[in-house]
Amino acid sequence: MKILLIGATGTLGTAVHKALDARGHEILTVGRSGGDLRYDITDPVQVAEIYDRAGRVDAVVSAAGHTPFKPVSELTPEDYLAAFRGKVLCQIDLVRQGISRIAERGSFTLITGVLAREPIPAGSAASMANGAVEAFVRAAAIEIAPQRINAVSPTVFTESLADYGAYFPGMPPVDLADVAGAYIRSVEGAQTGQVYAL
Amino acid sequence: MKILLIGATGTLGTAVHKALDARGHEILTVGRSGGDLRYDITDPVQVAEIYDRAGRVDAVVSAAGHTPFKPVSELTPEDYLAAFRGKVLCQIDLVRQGISRIAERGSFTLITGVLAREPIPAGSAASMANGAVEAFVRAAAIEIAPQRINAVSPTVFTESLADYGAYFPGMPPVDLADVAGAYIRSVEGAQTGQVYAL
Repeated sequence: MKILLIGATGTLGTAVHKALDARGHEILTVGRSGGDLRYDITDPVQVAEIYDRAGRVDAVVSAAGHTPFKPVSELTPEDYLAAFRGKVLCQIDLVRQGISRIAERGSFTLITGVLAREPIPAGSAASMANGAVEAFVRAAAIEIAPQRINAVSPTVFTESLADYGAYFPGMPPVDLADVAGAYIRSVEGAQTGQVYAL
Repeated sequence: MKILLIGATGTLGTAVHKALDARGHEILTVGRSGGDLRYDITDPVQVAEIYDRAGRVDAVVSAAGHTPFKPVSELTPEDYLAAFRGKVLCQIDLVRQGISRIAERGSFTLITGVLAREPIPAGSAASMANGAVEAFVRAAAIEIAPQRINAVSPTVFTESLADYGAYFPGMPPVDLADVAGAYIRSVEGAQTGQVYAL
């Protein structure tokens, strides 16, 4: 398949790239600072340009999202808006603009995360964003068929434990290879409206 | 208890008002077009004024939220932003500004809705907003203790079936009195981080 991979240069994006490549897919990478196409998906104009340049693709795969982390008493309305724009609205826009452009049976795979279901201190903006994306995925799925949409919702990566493990005490980490596997499952499988919780 | 009731003049707010009143609580009602205090909670400045005028309260109860309904292919980024501001950010702001102002063991009760878990066509912005609020509630709960926060997440009201029943085929409706009961449960009970799905 021809696959558009957003957020290709991050830790997760790199692992997903490797896994999709090993499956023989043709991958077009998009990133703010690296990749085949350099664009910022928080700007709808740039999302349109990505689709213009990519041409028809079979799957859109997102590993892009950023939210601020601060205690709930310190998060400002601007912080929540930044989380909304940085992880929710940009991914929704990939879907919104992609529906009329990707293959008739194409798919979207978005990224959320464990904080939607298991909160940690200072994570309320991230939890909010993840919960928003997951509910959107369930809702969009029933409207866009035969196109499909799923979310991958991982806990802390085994490979990131040194940096982030302290924030997830006692929670089993997940290997990046297994998270990438959930993307494969979404792209090559037939399910829709699913949240793959890992 | 002294209770601040936001969205007091709507269908749900009126039912919650009646139920809280029957329990002997002192209720201060807030609405855009009616109530003891007339304010728009989508404006953080007005939220601050509400708390200034209310003084110390024991519970903040919200029945306020508005999101656009359109097919996913027609919803614009502005529509999703309107949903975010109209149901998510305004309720988060009630919590953010309320933490330092309400009673030490006070509570927040926010409104979400069934579309977080059971989507309907044209409801993706509402689903997104409800999922965001529910995940926020779980996250905020672990930071604000001994203050508490819960969400009430009802399906279509029995009393609204004539207007909205067609959008919820085969889904059992819920009586407004039972939804109001969930607010009582949140306000007078001791639970936190709960989503009362009705």
